[in-house]
Amino acid sequence: MVEARILLILSVMLIFAVVGYLISKKLRQPATIFMILLGIILGGSVLGLVHYDSTLAVIAQIGSIILMFVAGLNSNIKEIFSRKNFLVALFGAILPLIGGFIVSRAFGYPLYESIFVGATLTATCLGITTALLKELGKIKTETAKIMIGAAVIDDIISLTILSMVLSVPSNTTAFNVAFNILLVIVFVVLMVLFGEGLLTKILDYFNDKVIKHSPKLTFVLGLSMVFLFSYLSYVLGLAPITGAFLVGVSLARSRAVNILMAGSEYFEIIFTSIFFITIGIIVEVKAFYTLFWFIIALTIVAILTKLLGSGVSSYKLGLKPKDALIVGVGMVPRGEVAFIIALNGLLLGVISTEIYSAIVFMSFLTTIITLILLKMLYEKSSSGSDDEHVEFIDLKIKR
Amino acid sequence: MVEARILLILSVMLIFAVVGYLISKKLRQPATIFMILLGIILGGSVLGLVHYDSTLAVIAQIGSIILMFVAGLNSNIKEIFSRKNFLVALFGAILPLIGGFIVSRAFGYPLYESIFVGATLTATCLGITTALLKELGKIKTETAKIMIGAAVIDDIISLTILSMVLSVPSNTTAFNVAFNILLVIVFVVLMVLFGEGLLTKILDYFNDKVIKHSPKLTFVLGLSMVFLFSYLSYVLGLAPITGAFLVGVSLARSRAVNILMAGSEYFEIIFTSIFFITIGIIVEVKAFYTLFWFIIALTIVAILTKLLGSGVSSYKLGLKPKDALIVGVGMVPRGEVAFIIALNGLLLGVISTEIYSAIVFMSFLTTIITLILLKMLYEKSSSGSDDEHVEFIDLKIKR
Repeated sequence: MVEARILLILSVMLIFAVVGYLISKKLRQPATIFMILLGIILGGSVLGLVHYDSTLAVIAQIGSIILMFVAGLNSNIKEIFSRKNFLVALFGAILPLIGGFIVSRAFGYPLYESIFVGATLTATCLGITTALLKELGKIKTETAKIMIGAAVIDDIISLTILSMVLSVPSNTTAFNVAFNILLVIVFVVLMVLFGEGLLTKILDYFNDKVIKHSPKLTFVLGLSMVFLFSYLSYVLGLAPITGAFLVGVSLARSRAVNILMAGSEYFEIIFTSIFFITIGIIVEVKAFYTLFWFIIALTIVAILTKLLGSGVSSYKLGLKPKDALIVGVGMVPRGEVAFIIALNGLLLGVISTEIYSAIVFMSFLTTIITLILLKMLYEKSSSGSDDEHVEFIDLKIKR
Repeated sequence: MVEARILLILSVMLIFAVVGYLISKKLRQPATIFMILLGIILGGSVLGLVHYDSTLAVIAQIGSIILMFVAGLNSNIKEIFSRKNFLVALFGAILPLIGGFIVSRAFGYPLYESIFVGATLTATCLGITTALLKELGKIKTETAKIMIGAAVIDDIISLTILSMVLSVPSNTTAFNVAFNILLVIVFVVLMVLFGEGLLTKILDYFNDKVIKHSPKLTFVLGLSMVFLFSYLSYVLGLAPITGAFLVGVSLARSRAVNILMAGSEYFEIIFTSIFFITIGIIVEVKAFYTLFWFIIALTIVAILTKLLGSGVSSYKLGLKPKDALIVGVGMVPRGEVAFIIALNGLLLGVISTEIYSAIVFMSFLTTIITLILLKMLYEKSSSGSDDEHVEFIDLKIKR
């Protein structure tokens, strides 16, 4: 047949995904980390069993689209878009962008590559923090709500930054850059304002009046919207995932949201497992030695800029010092959005495989450090936890 | 991004899938037909919006694998593999194989292409007959059970024939051909005898003892088995779908079968929709004119050989003349397996796009004629039907 090897690759990846989840459950750590580690083992640097190619690229891209769609579905516009959350997110995105840019320039990397590295530091990976908050029984606190809201907003901010960054190389004049930035803002604002009214109305109308009793068909319709807006996003010069995320946010209050979630969760586990393993496959292990000091510097900047940007701003907005510190630490981990931005840069040829690998290592380090620090901060008041607390898909942005 | 166009294609295909299902529901006809028709409209012959490429080939292949896996899951070994069903299936497969071969040779086609055409006539497309039997309220009759059992067996027979046919070109000596046929038989027999014991034991052990409370993970494990055995099948010179079907049959009595079905149904609707639309995309409409008399001759042979092979043999096995006639007519439709075999031939370069298109048209004609004849045969005793009777996925081989 056409490409029978893909069947073997899919089979091996899915077995590795099962292994990754089981280890993560046993050790009570986020599954993402183990998937990426297994990907590194599978990839060229270690076993060399699977190599990155165009078919894997398509599957990983669909994985990131479904990931962001589900993240959007799990967002609640009203709870998220408060002034406080917006400010915590904004400062927690701008400072890392500047910090990442400066440290990359200091290490001698080109201008455009440095902007990309800065962009990868902007978004918090909420999954890891959420999983830990759940484990510690702190998920319903005011502090948790600020972290979750701010993390969703900084996702949007960083996707917007990515879209702006992506549109730079093809359009060199200042007018074009400004026009592209305007386009991005208009698209995002239009989707936030009218997306819900339009898409939800269409989906609910079909679900209630036309389709009836065929939830799977409603799911197919929803998924066709996701792919359509991902493509529109791309045509406008944005990242496809921005469109997917905005469709998710738009459909979050549809009456058919449970149908969309039920269908998506199976796609999510398959495609995102493949996505994270693919992230690992591309990593060059030797980058950890060759770029050791850059990785350390980048990680320190990643931690300090979130502590300052999100921690201090939430203190200024009225939180108690310890709660503000918790917010600052909780916002430190970088994850899926950083990978997506790094992958975009890699595919565009703007960042090298080495820098890409450095970003993946930075993500590991921030995650592990957050796990330790946040446990220490909560230590005194934490209650016992059981097996069920480590979430299965722990990357979801929970409502 | 890598291949942003695929996002547009996926989006258009899924919208067309929704339209296809809605039309089929409205007209109470099998959805497959409308999906293929929409594919023809989308494809090069009419609108030219979507062209067949390697990415679409991978998606369509995964679609056919999931289709056959679900068909396997829905099979009950004991009810199916009776002597009566086997004989009805065997004669109903051999006669069309010979008939298809002769008519192709008579029209001047090469030896190997003619064997392929014969192979496409061997398998009954159960979906259409099942949907109709359900609609008429006849699904639980003895006649229906024979048709369903025999159709499952002739699927296996025709997949075995396909595997043999596929292994011919690379091995020209008689010894090699014989060895390949032996390999096919050994693999199928081993899977039927030990597949259930082995695969079900592994899956159930993981589901009960290791995974626990994570049905989605069990689904991932099951799917990894499907891809692994599809690949093994391919390595042995068989069609990947044979392995997928046998894994389905093996896991049909697993305690986790409901988990596998729940997960598969979402994949099935997405991937098989794309599969059937892709079938249509490849069709050359002009083949209907250029090969008109061949299509008519092939359709007549397709009908007569099933009437004789399955109808007469079930009469000889003790059925009443009218019931035997119903079995004969019910076995006439050709569908998914014919498409899969034709697609394999096309990809191997053994059959031309014209012949491929002729096989798709033959499938349409046999389906429509069966719908008319079977309704007439059941006419007097048929009861009214409601909306729910037309099955959503009507290609499943029901338990």
